[in-house]
Amino acid sequence: MLQAKGYAVQDAHSPLAPFSFERRSPGPRDVQIEILYSGICHSDLHQARNDWHNSIYPMVPGHEIVGRVTAVGAQVTRLKVGDFAGVGCMVDSCRTCASCAEGLEQYCENGPTYTYNSKLRDSEELAFGGYSDLIVVDEHFVVKIPPTLDLKAAAPLLCAGITTWSPLRHWKVGRTADGTPHKVGVIGLGGLGHMGIKFAKALGARVVMITTSPSKAADAMRLGADEVLLSTDRAAMKQHARSFDFLLNTIPNGHDLNPYAALLKRDGHMVLVGVLTELDPPLFGGSLIGARRSVAGSAIGGMPETQEMIDFCAEHGIVADVEMIDIQSVNQAYERLLKNDVKYRFVIDMASLKNAA
Amino acid sequence: MLQAKGYAVQDAHSPLAPFSFERRSPGPRDVQIEILYSGICHSDLHQARNDWHNSIYPMVPGHEIVGRVTAVGAQVTRLKVGDFAGVGCMVDSCRTCASCAEGLEQYCENGPTYTYNSKLRDSEELAFGGYSDLIVVDEHFVVKIPPTLDLKAAAPLLCAGITTWSPLRHWKVGRTADGTPHKVGVIGLGGLGHMGIKFAKALGARVVMITTSPSKAADAMRLGADEVLLSTDRAAMKQHARSFDFLLNTIPNGHDLNPYAALLKRDGHMVLVGVLTELDPPLFGGSLIGARRSVAGSAIGGMPETQEMIDFCAEHGIVADVEMIDIQSVNQAYERLLKNDVKYRFVIDMASLKNAA
Ligand SMILES: [Zn+2]
Ligand SMILES: [Zn+2]
Ligand SMILES: [Zn+2]
Ligand SMILES: [Zn+2]
Repeated sequence: MLQAKGYAVQDAHSPLAPFSFERRSPGPRDVQIEILYSGICHSDLHQARNDWHNSIYPMVPGHEIVGRVTAVGAQVTRLKVGDFAGVGCMVDSCRTCASCAEGLEQYCENGPTYTYNSKLRDSEELAFGGYSDLIVVDEHFVVKIPPTLDLKAAAPLLCAGITTWSPLRHWKVGRTADGTPHKVGVIGLGGLGHMGIKFAKALGARVVMITTSPSKAADAMRLGADEVLLSTDRAAMKQHARSFDFLLNTIPNGHDLNPYAALLKRDGHMVLVGVLTELDPPLFGGSLIGARRSVAGSAIGGMPETQEMIDFCAEHGIVADVEMIDIQSVNQAYERLLKNDVKYRFVIDMASLKNAA
Repeated sequence: MLQAKGYAVQDAHSPLAPFSFERRSPGPRDVQIEILYSGICHSDLHQARNDWHNSIYPMVPGHEIVGRVTAVGAQVTRLKVGDFAGVGCMVDSCRTCASCAEGLEQYCENGPTYTYNSKLRDSEELAFGGYSDLIVVDEHFVVKIPPTLDLKAAAPLLCAGITTWSPLRHWKVGRTADGTPHKVGVIGLGGLGHMGIKFAKALGARVVMITTSPSKAADAMRLGADEVLLSTDRAAMKQHARSFDFLLNTIPNGHDLNPYAALLKRDGHMVLVGVLTELDPPLFGGSLIGARRSVAGSAIGGMPETQEMIDFCAEHGIVADVEMIDIQSVNQAYERLLKNDVKYRFVIDMASLKNAA
């Protein structure tokens, strides 16, 4: 076994605090990674505080992990010692179901093994996440990070990045066959939304940032939006009615989808990536029927498309906008996250773990 | 002008009663049709009674029209005197928008002209529907009915038929590329549902009728269903979870979509064709996100696909199950329709219009 250090919560009401634990020694297909950077996802906060009523303690959060490979098992072929590597929301899956066979492990019909707040596959051992100094993961769930990427700003690609990339690719967002840019709306400007803007733009779309906050307009344009649409401006919403090919809805809680649905063209799709709860107030069936619109959902992304995204980011110079913190500040960062006070992702410099607590 | 006779409602609270009115004489692109049969759609009832708060009176309902061509304008090419012809929910559209250009006139961006409860294009004149002895319609909105089809049972194809056909075709329902039948659920067994079963089966799918009524099981099997799933049977619903490729939801009013969404496989679609109102109680976003499911809507169908459906019906011997009535019984039929007491569509024999009222 390997001795690991990190930060954990012991129950729903305690802050994150230093924690020592064990990781398995790398098996033949495992990659051992020295964690350099760990992004803070909203779901870290929700799970630490048991907001979803499924938390297992002690919990070491973190599923936006970038580090350096320090050891590999004998059968590992894609990574070698010294490579930079990334680990996202999953560390295992059944490997045999139809979704796994298609490289869509996030939809594993037997349930993927999540990076934390999960039990290791066929085991009672807990999976511990990225707020730690090292991790050991089956090669299949490790992506290779080109050294040209800014590593600390690449960490959020492993969750916020892939969660927005996957639906844009699945629904073939970018340009029409004749080269006309799709008109794409990104709803909500947070960790997910800011990646959605960057990706949709890089894929060739005309990107409209849709937000309730006029204060976000300038930043949205800086991130690559071609236009900002205030969802509170009824006249503007009407002007944009029936004009969008695709809407990426990153709002994390229940809200009225009807004003957004009305923005879609015939056959347009609105894809939800944030809201797990009730879509309340309810959608109107007539809004879907009247223009053959659809509302769909999408979860993170599979391993092949995660590597595809990382390679695309390296090619196009795309990373997240991050604010770096030391691990000792993680509890304050959670407080700020609650107020959406971050542009756009906190990333923990794991070197700080070596400092005194 | 042509003198026409029919049955009309004069306001939201009066029964249908004999009514005399004028139709235009056929112009160069018009087809004049002697109406033989007229189906009764649920929306006839709703519009007669102003349930949707958009009714215009006097109103001659009826948009499932089959008849014989009695005159054609000089520029008409697809139909000739003596042909059997059908008219559905639309009699005109802008002809210039993107949807019209694609033959999806039902989604005309300037709004199609409906067969009744509508004003004729660029006119203050009212459009009168199929509960009458004749109609004059632009050739573009007339389909040709092969004489081998049972004409009276073909009338409901013009609304109930195309409304279920169009989504099955648009979402490519039938078999996978390797010939495996799709598993298709038809939710609700009424006028739409019974056509959905027939079409999905004829397109090669394995069809499961999903209903709350055990009493409908035998009939569903007779109509072509391979299996009946009672949505009230929680164990059965659980057994079928994540197994459907496609769900055709024909329920006409707001209901809980969540138990049905849970039946869909990854990437499965549920398409609504009946419910125009609120989808209440609300959908859970997590149900869509967890398996990349989508909920979409679909409205009737365009003219090219309506002709395609009619030709498919002629080839496969498909018509609606109908109960014939005289026009003098139409008000009683409406009362029975309110109780869903019909298998599965009333069709008015318009010859009865010549009888004393
Ligand atoms: Zn995350
Ligand atoms: Zn699997
Ligand atoms: Zn109808
Ligand atoms: Zn049009």
